[in-house]
Amino acid sequence: MLIEIPARRGKAVRLRRGQSVRVVNTRGQQVVDTWAFVADDIAEFMSMEHSRVAIGRIIPGIGDSMVTNRRRPILTLIADNSGGIHDTLFAACDRWRYELLGCAGYHDNCTDNLAAALAELGLVPPETPAPLNLFMNIPVVDGNRVEIRPPVSTPGSYVTLRAEADCIVAFSACPQDIVPINGLALQPTEAHFDVLD
Amino acid sequence: MLIEIPARRGKAVRLRRGQSVRVVNTRGQQVVDTWAFVADDIAEFMSMEHSRVAIGRIIPGIGDSMVTNRRRPILTLIADNSGGIHDTLFAACDRWRYELLGCAGYHDNCTDNLAAALAELGLVPPETPAPLNLFMNIPVVDGNRVEIRPPVSTPGSYVTLRAEADCIVAFSACPQDIVPINGLALQPTEAHFDVLD
Repeated sequence: MLIEIPARRGKAVRLRRGQSVRVVNTRGQQVVDTWAFVADDIAEFMSMEHSRVAIGRIIPGIGDSMVTNRRRPILTLIADNSGGIHDTLFAACDRWRYELLGCAGYHDNCTDNLAAALAELGLVPPETPAPLNLFMNIPVVDGNRVEIRPPVSTPGSYVTLRAEADCIVAFSACPQDIVPINGLALQPTEAHFDVLD
Repeated sequence: MLIEIPARRGKAVRLRRGQSVRVVNTRGQQVVDTWAFVADDIAEFMSMEHSRVAIGRIIPGIGDSMVTNRRRPILTLIADNSGGIHDTLFAACDRWRYELLGCAGYHDNCTDNLAAALAELGLVPPETPAPLNLFMNIPVVDGNRVEIRPPVSTPGSYVTLRAEADCIVAFSACPQDIVPINGLALQPTEAHFDVLD
């Protein structure tokens, strides 16, 4: 059953070890910030800085297991027909990001979406870990410079992540509409996921 | 006055806004994990995932300001004669890193060194942020693969970081002696720093 991640909003789901979640880029150009927390101790969570060490690259490929801040596997990328471009380098957007981009009032942001998604499950994030930014296109050019580019993914393309531990996975359909992270149209959209046994 | 960061150990110092700290790679091949916390609220700290967004690259160059998890400047790189190779991608080493590398007993590690350095000042780190790994050589090859290489720095070379806020800066002379992060000799050494007004 496809569950909606509404445009500009977050959504979390519990996974048992061995279950998978398929994250669908419904409209094709939507970045989905993704976090995972160990079910019985959310102080242990998927960590990009530990995962880069574990997988030996900055973008996970099929078969790569992201690890927690205790270096234990938590999510393995088992399928990807989106073009294989994701980001592990950039922080989740937050109120300060949008203030710096010139927004006067409140702007939806992935950091608050994570907190809201976990709150629906009665949980409080211990911190805001750097997310696995699915479909986000941040190439490292000349070994150093990072660029912000539109996604290469197409409508209906997806990635599938298998849980290596009982965990809570949280998503945010990134509300960025000032830089072209979510496509040149600057139009954040909904995305979807379903849980596979 | 040069202060020693003993081999395999951590050390922290308070900086006032406008002061700088010069970090000296005394023997030339020693990685120094570096953190910064805002003095009056250590829940705000230097963040690599926010800094990469702010500076538009994965390795800071002269003039670049690292920012906090609230996206405020905290440390600016104002001098560097070490070859300009540093790392923002890898987590601090920790007990789990050395367990995975096959160490049977306890191994000194940068995560515990951060906690010990702050404890000397009566502080507890709110978490272990991803460090600015000075002198650490982790190139991104072909835009994706990360490699572990010895430092390019030479004995006595240094970087200078200016405080953009009153802060606590913590260092760890990385005790890694299994992979050649601290040189092909696999011999962690001391490093030094001094505070410049």
